[in-house]
Amino acid sequence: MANSPTGDSVIGRVVRLLNAFDRQQPSMTLSGLAHRAALPLTTAHRLVEELVKYGLIERDPDGQLRVGLRLWELAARGSRALTLREIALPYMEDVQAAVHRYTTLAILDHGSVLYLERLSAPDSALENALDAGHIAQRAPVHSTSSGLVLLAYSPSALQEEVLAGPLEKVTGETITDPQVIRRHLAEIRQRGYAAIPGIAVKEWTGIAVPVFGAGNNIAAVLNATVPRGETNVPFTLPALLTAAHGISRALGADSGPARPRRR
Amino acid sequence: MANSPTGDSVIGRVVRLLNAFDRQQPSMTLSGLAHRAALPLTTAHRLVEELVKYGLIERDPDGQLRVGLRLWELAARGSRALTLREIALPYMEDVQAAVHRYTTLAILDHGSVLYLERLSAPDSALENALDAGHIAQRAPVHSTSSGLVLLAYSPSALQEEVLAGPLEKVTGETITDPQVIRRHLAEIRQRGYAAIPGIAVKEWTGIAVPVFGAGNNIAAVLNATVPRGETNVPFTLPALLTAAHGISRALGADSGPARPRRR
Repeated sequence: MANSPTGDSVIGRVVRLLNAFDRQQPSMTLSGLAHRAALPLTTAHRLVEELVKYGLIERDPDGQLRVGLRLWELAARGSRALTLREIALPYMEDVQAAVHRYTTLAILDHGSVLYLERLSAPDSALENALDAGHIAQRAPVHSTSSGLVLLAYSPSALQEEVLAGPLEKVTGETITDPQVIRRHLAEIRQRGYAAIPGIAVKEWTGIAVPVFGAGNNIAAVLNATVPRGETNVPFTLPALLTAAHGISRALGADSGPARPRRR
Repeated sequence: MANSPTGDSVIGRVVRLLNAFDRQQPSMTLSGLAHRAALPLTTAHRLVEELVKYGLIERDPDGQLRVGLRLWELAARGSRALTLREIALPYMEDVQAAVHRYTTLAILDHGSVLYLERLSAPDSALENALDAGHIAQRAPVHSTSSGLVLLAYSPSALQEEVLAGPLEKVTGETITDPQVIRRHLAEIRQRGYAAIPGIAVKEWTGIAVPVFGAGNNIAAVLNATVPRGETNVPFTLPALLTAAHGISRALGADSGPARPRRR
């Protein structure tokens, strides 16, 4: 593999280029891209030309670069993210229809919460407040109800890895004491859901329930976000539990009550 | 760029590897992957090791390889496919709720129909018959109502390129005579939709309506598929036109009637 003077391989440099694009900045000039990817302009130019040739990066009519449709196509066709999302989507629509709340599906990946899907009324007030819930965005595990549910049903080794930190304070109420988090995880396993106000966004409460797959292992988490302080949890929770049970069944979890199993 | 003896660059070989995965075969062994990508096993091994390191390819516990979640994440974050899909999804749900039909959103890309989203009842009989309508799958332009709508509102040069063929017969009723297709395109522009039975799957009719974006250019096509011979078109078409109008408005097309403009 041809390595650059900095030791990066071609694949490593391509990943740095693609990683420079995000929701806040989905398109940019070549020099902007080189800067964000921390690559020399000549290197970026040469790689981008080839990525454009294969459709992995696209050039807008005004010369701005963006992630190519072909990359999405390659990624989506065989992806387990998409399989899970396709299975979950009808059930998420049911939740959305029943409770009209911002609803997300997420998994635990490389130590953070990765959002695979979200449904939201176009004028959702939460939409702007909560960037993390957007598709393909990540959030810290300890700072969302979704993350804490995923963690509660994960193997102890993974729990300890996350609890070893760093545990950033996302809001003033984000729980960063490993002992307090451990108590929450135990409570989540006992109750079968999490509904912890203010840890991700001050004014909102995420209600999160586990989705199980084959072998009754945790496969994903379904979350609806409700305004804090309202009595929305008792109304929203049964809708989420119902949908999560449906998704779990579709994923091949044991039938029977959706009650989570103690580890 | 380090080229192989066959002239492929690293990026070219990576694309060949990723392209080997699809919906029918989302996971495979290293030797299976090397074979499908037409790469020497040693080359495939070296590249796959590095792709796994970056999460672009994942190795299942049983050693099978599949497209990595990280690739999906990189592709999804800045992608215009996802933006369009996110905007369209609520309107697609409205159609689904109203008419309970297999509903897809597609665009024209590199001379074929690329499906960005689909909604379907889990037990849809069509699901198995129509592989093309799955997310990130492609279909020939001339053999679907969606493709003909996309073509009808495309520039003449692109139309002629597609009509120059090859025009494969997907079913016995697929229209392959360029003159007949031209008449259909004129009729679609006049009517504002396509509903041509049997050209993609013998027993079904795709009903397709255009979605316009900024400058009232064609941006996508919305399609619902109904059993052929039933009187479903008059019932389904208004739901599609309504949703397509909403998506067009959200994409910044001129407000006013959703009537397509003659070129």
